[in-house]
Amino acid sequence: MTTDSWINESLYPNWGQRFLVKRELARVQSDFQDIVIFESTSHGRVMVLDGVIQITEGDEFVYQEMLTHVPLLAHGAAKNVLIIGAGDGGVLRRVLQHNTVERAVMVEIDGEVIRLSKEFLPNIAGNAWTDPRADVIVGDGIDYVKRAPDASFDAIIVDSTDPIGVGEVLFTDEFYQNCARILTPRGLIVNQCGVPAMQADELRDTSLRRRKFFPHVTAYVAAVPTYVGGFMTLGWAGKDPSLTALPADTIRARAEATGILGTTHYWTPEIHAGAFNLPPYIAKHLPA
Amino acid sequence: MTTDSWINESLYPNWGQRFLVKRELARVQSDFQDIVIFESTSHGRVMVLDGVIQITEGDEFVYQEMLTHVPLLAHGAAKNVLIIGAGDGGVLRRVLQHNTVERAVMVEIDGEVIRLSKEFLPNIAGNAWTDPRADVIVGDGIDYVKRAPDASFDAIIVDSTDPIGVGEVLFTDEFYQNCARILTPRGLIVNQCGVPAMQADELRDTSLRRRKFFPHVTAYVAAVPTYVGGFMTLGWAGKDPSLTALPADTIRARAEATGILGTTHYWTPEIHAGAFNLPPYIAKHLPA
Repeated sequence: MTTDSWINESLYPNWGQRFLVKRELARVQSDFQDIVIFESTSHGRVMVLDGVIQITEGDEFVYQEMLTHVPLLAHGAAKNVLIIGAGDGGVLRRVLQHNTVERAVMVEIDGEVIRLSKEFLPNIAGNAWTDPRADVIVGDGIDYVKRAPDASFDAIIVDSTDPIGVGEVLFTDEFYQNCARILTPRGLIVNQCGVPAMQADELRDTSLRRRKFFPHVTAYVAAVPTYVGGFMTLGWAGKDPSLTALPADTIRARAEATGILGTTHYWTPEIHAGAFNLPPYIAKHLPA
Repeated sequence: MTTDSWINESLYPNWGQRFLVKRELARVQSDFQDIVIFESTSHGRVMVLDGVIQITEGDEFVYQEMLTHVPLLAHGAAKNVLIIGAGDGGVLRRVLQHNTVERAVMVEIDGEVIRLSKEFLPNIAGNAWTDPRADVIVGDGIDYVKRAPDASFDAIIVDSTDPIGVGEVLFTDEFYQNCARILTPRGLIVNQCGVPAMQADELRDTSLRRRKFFPHVTAYVAAVPTYVGGFMTLGWAGKDPSLTALPADTIRARAEATGILGTTHYWTPEIHAGAFNLPPYIAKHLPA
């Protein structure tokens, strides 16, 4: 086996994961980033953006379930949901599983990610692309939240790359300020905040930034196999702190009513409730 | 940077992590295994046995805290503790933190692991080696449990390699049967059961095996950054199922009494209580 058969993730300069490649399926330089999709021998198909693993067929359920079901069930009656990024369609599919949702707007800046995901990763989104409640926009999320009406969304889910390259603007003051404005009174925003064992700055800096515009800022954890480095954190910002302190029984009842219970492979009501209990090595990076 | 500077973990043939090596500190072929210790640029010093990452200075706290504090605080009054393996001394150090413990016997088969850990990883064990309550034996754990008296230990902690190579015998019927015999009535055994996203067989097979000798068999999870692949499972076998269903308040009170509270970076009473809530993708591998 030559080393040519391996793809090394380049996220960190001194540590990371590598995949044995069975077959490269696509390699495209879009207007925004370098996109590679390959068939691995360990995790099914894998999408890589600018050298960083974004999604694998083998473990996408962990991230998608936790990024979607936690905010929607914590809210309990989300009708209008805004998704920023997530061009593979996996979050959109999970959002549309909730029968409370009347409209899911997805704004992805890179149309090539959507096109290639439809062609090479069709199972990630399933039938979500053609759901009548879905409104898929190829465009700039920053612009979208700037122009959206006040109090027009119950939940905003940001599934972006790390705050480098194309995803950087999704971690700015201007973005969070507009998000706060377009959310309903019980509304909330979640976004991926990296793996604190390696990227503690990401959690600390974005939490401080969200804190300027939201009274309640916290984070919750998920152990995503191919976001290597222990727990990844998902940042949470909202107005109502009770949403992150619900007991598992309440969450279970909501999940049953909304059609989620029994459909998941990582998320459970107990894991949902427990995910806000942060290890001290992570909690210390949140604003007091 | 040439690829010669990287060490690739060889645990899985088609996926894994790699470390940029600053300096190799030791490379020894012992009677049992190939031992390498190097200084990484990302995780401090790292010990590798037969090509598999065993411990890094940067994240050892996750595994050690969860492997030690969970069983000892769940038991609540463990006086005699048996540690099998764990030649780096990290589990021994955590066991001796508990002021309930009167005697900690550690049986490590490979004296070279102890010797090299003392020389190159002194912070892992701290002062544990010279604690008067510690009894460190270089010998065979299988033999030790065969000859130990009935009901002589309150907890057995197995910190072994995966069930390949030198660690394989620690996953056999004979071993578990003797463990059941030498445990006190409320006694329990924990052992590392691999990363189910990659090694589901390990959890399934060892759980079935423990089930033959213990009425209560389950597992709990920890997200260890350099045991890549999402949650690792720690197997649990005992006689009293109430020990794994304690509320966080009970655990907190015990941790305060025994001197643990506030000393940890991953373990908390809430994480302890929540760790027995398994994601469905893991729970399905446990015996019904």
